[in-house]
Amino acid sequence: MGDDAAGDQVDAIVVSNLVNVRYLTGFTGSNAAVLVWAERPERPEDTISTDGRYVSQVAAQVPDLPALIARDCPRALVEHAAGLRPRVRIGIEADAMSVAAFTDLSQHAGAELVPLRGTVEALRAVKDAGEVELITSACRIGDEALAALIERDAIVPGRTERAVARDLEWEMYVRGADAIAFETIVAAGPNSAIPHHRPTDAVLADGDLVKMDFGAVAGGYHSDMTRTYVLGAAAAWQREIYEIVEAAQLAGREALVPGADLAGVDAVAREVIADAGYGEYYVHGLGHGVGLEIHEGPGIGAAASGTLPVGATVTVEPGIYVPGRGGVRIEDTLVVTDAGPRLLTTTPRALRAL
Amino acid sequence: MGDDAAGDQVDAIVVSNLVNVRYLTGFTGSNAAVLVWAERPERPEDTISTDGRYVSQVAAQVPDLPALIARDCPRALVEHAAGLRPRVRIGIEADAMSVAAFTDLSQHAGAELVPLRGTVEALRAVKDAGEVELITSACRIGDEALAALIERDAIVPGRTERAVARDLEWEMYVRGADAIAFETIVAAGPNSAIPHHRPTDAVLADGDLVKMDFGAVAGGYHSDMTRTYVLGAAAAWQREIYEIVEAAQLAGREALVPGADLAGVDAVAREVIADAGYGEYYVHGLGHGVGLEIHEGPGIGAAASGTLPVGATVTVEPGIYVPGRGGVRIEDTLVVTDAGPRLLTTTPRALRAL
Repeated sequence: MGDDAAGDQVDAIVVSNLVNVRYLTGFTGSNAAVLVWAERPERPEDTISTDGRYVSQVAAQVPDLPALIARDCPRALVEHAAGLRPRVRIGIEADAMSVAAFTDLSQHAGAELVPLRGTVEALRAVKDAGEVELITSACRIGDEALAALIERDAIVPGRTERAVARDLEWEMYVRGADAIAFETIVAAGPNSAIPHHRPTDAVLADGDLVKMDFGAVAGGYHSDMTRTYVLGAAAAWQREIYEIVEAAQLAGREALVPGADLAGVDAVAREVIADAGYGEYYVHGLGHGVGLEIHEGPGIGAAASGTLPVGATVTVEPGIYVPGRGGVRIEDTLVVTDAGPRLLTTTPRALRAL
Repeated sequence: MGDDAAGDQVDAIVVSNLVNVRYLTGFTGSNAAVLVWAERPERPEDTISTDGRYVSQVAAQVPDLPALIARDCPRALVEHAAGLRPRVRIGIEADAMSVAAFTDLSQHAGAELVPLRGTVEALRAVKDAGEVELITSACRIGDEALAALIERDAIVPGRTERAVARDLEWEMYVRGADAIAFETIVAAGPNSAIPHHRPTDAVLADGDLVKMDFGAVAGGYHSDMTRTYVLGAAAAWQREIYEIVEAAQLAGREALVPGADLAGVDAVAREVIADAGYGEYYVHGLGHGVGLEIHEGPGIGAAASGTLPVGATVTVEPGIYVPGRGGVRIEDTLVVTDAGPRLLTTTPRALRAL
């Protein structure tokens, strides 16, 4: 299969990750690929491929590119490219293409295939103004939906996690969400100690921590926010872990300056929790990029490499999870600017009793 | 990378497709793999792997298997297996594993990796009674949600596609859907000629065909149904294409007998449409399996190979799409039994004016 090669060693790339196809062309169908030629004088025409279900849609969404109609889009494009240029070297997306698809394509394509990684993802990590605007819209939908839920006393003892989650999603839909960004997390009481809990019929009770992690999609772009509330008066241990997470989250947010080392940003927040003695209860990374996908680059974690670019939209979401008792996570989505980090989710973060 | 090998040539399989992991173990987290050893006398213990977010969840959902906690689950399991048995041959899922993941795993694993295809999917194509029950529940949610929508005059001129889709999804949620099976399609007027149209702010108008393709999820299992209505009196051309699709769909359903050739089932329905002169407007396959995924085996299309097993749950969904004018699709989910096909979606199919 060979190792990755630099993008400039190939004549063209066949992009088959559907999110990358959407990013490059605007096409939103469920089966597609796009052939993008390297910049050279005799550059042939870029071409999109999709199947028969999307003939009208591809013409409407991608009027500027010719469309090859085929079920196996990468194969159709590779064969098309091989017909235009003998001994063509074509990059494929090694993270998007399966071993099975690569094996089949290698046997039939008549081209040399070069696995590449992260070519389009690197472009996507930096958002332009239009993208930031869409993410901002998605964040606003989430903020307003949560405010509406609290306003009408929907997060109270006696209701189930599932009912609260359903209401929150409904409030996002009526505010114009295209879709829910991911399966909404509502986790009450001991369930709040499960970082990624799916809502159940568990009933919210007085004294519970209630952790809600949710987002909306606007124009294809995602938002992501977590807030944790307490039902009734907070116990001392709840207040303690809340304030540690709050301090860690603030430290993490303030570290989001252009050029910051990604692992270093993670460390700043992690140290706050570790210094307070809760390091073993913080079991995940600090954050991730948000855009056309809910999780994309840059990742902010202990093992991350690289630095934070201007225009990145990322989450900051430290947490403390005490098994069997409860957990707290506070998460915002922010954009990195030359003037520092700017919050896109704006719901207050101070400990609140409902 | 080598070719596929028979499953019995490997010592174990590392299953990394998350749906297959759920099928085999019940685990529903978003990062996992499971090591399954071949049946031999000295068979080591099967093992699941997931990351630190899911420590509690994996203990609750998979109490019978030891869990390896790691971020890169396939790698952790392959290294674990290599430690137990030198020169171990391990099957990996060629359709689930990316070229990038396979390359990395090959360089580090200390085991011989054998790409396999469809091993778990072949098991999943045949449903047991419990699975059929869940799919039946999901189908019932869809039937009842659509009936409720019609009952309260929610599919009428003046409303938008998006509003109707939102209402339909809401009706499924309140009837206990875990989730929506896929992005609900509501396509009115000329948009109904787009096989997979996303709801827009287009307003339903008198005389429109309104095509709705939707489903619910119950206990992880999906339903899938399409109905097409007409707003006001049907024009002659609308009635004509409706009756052709209705006849094709009935023919397709009746062909769902155990052992039927899959391409032959497709052909039976396709001929009805082709003989009526509309073959060029029917641009997709007849149906697909439905289960833990909305699209799974067996596929029913012109290029399908193999035969229909007892216990398969499949859709039958022919359509005619006249670009710029409108389209009709009628789709049901059925289970194949020794006594013939049994409908799981039960909403009436005759042309109905709303």
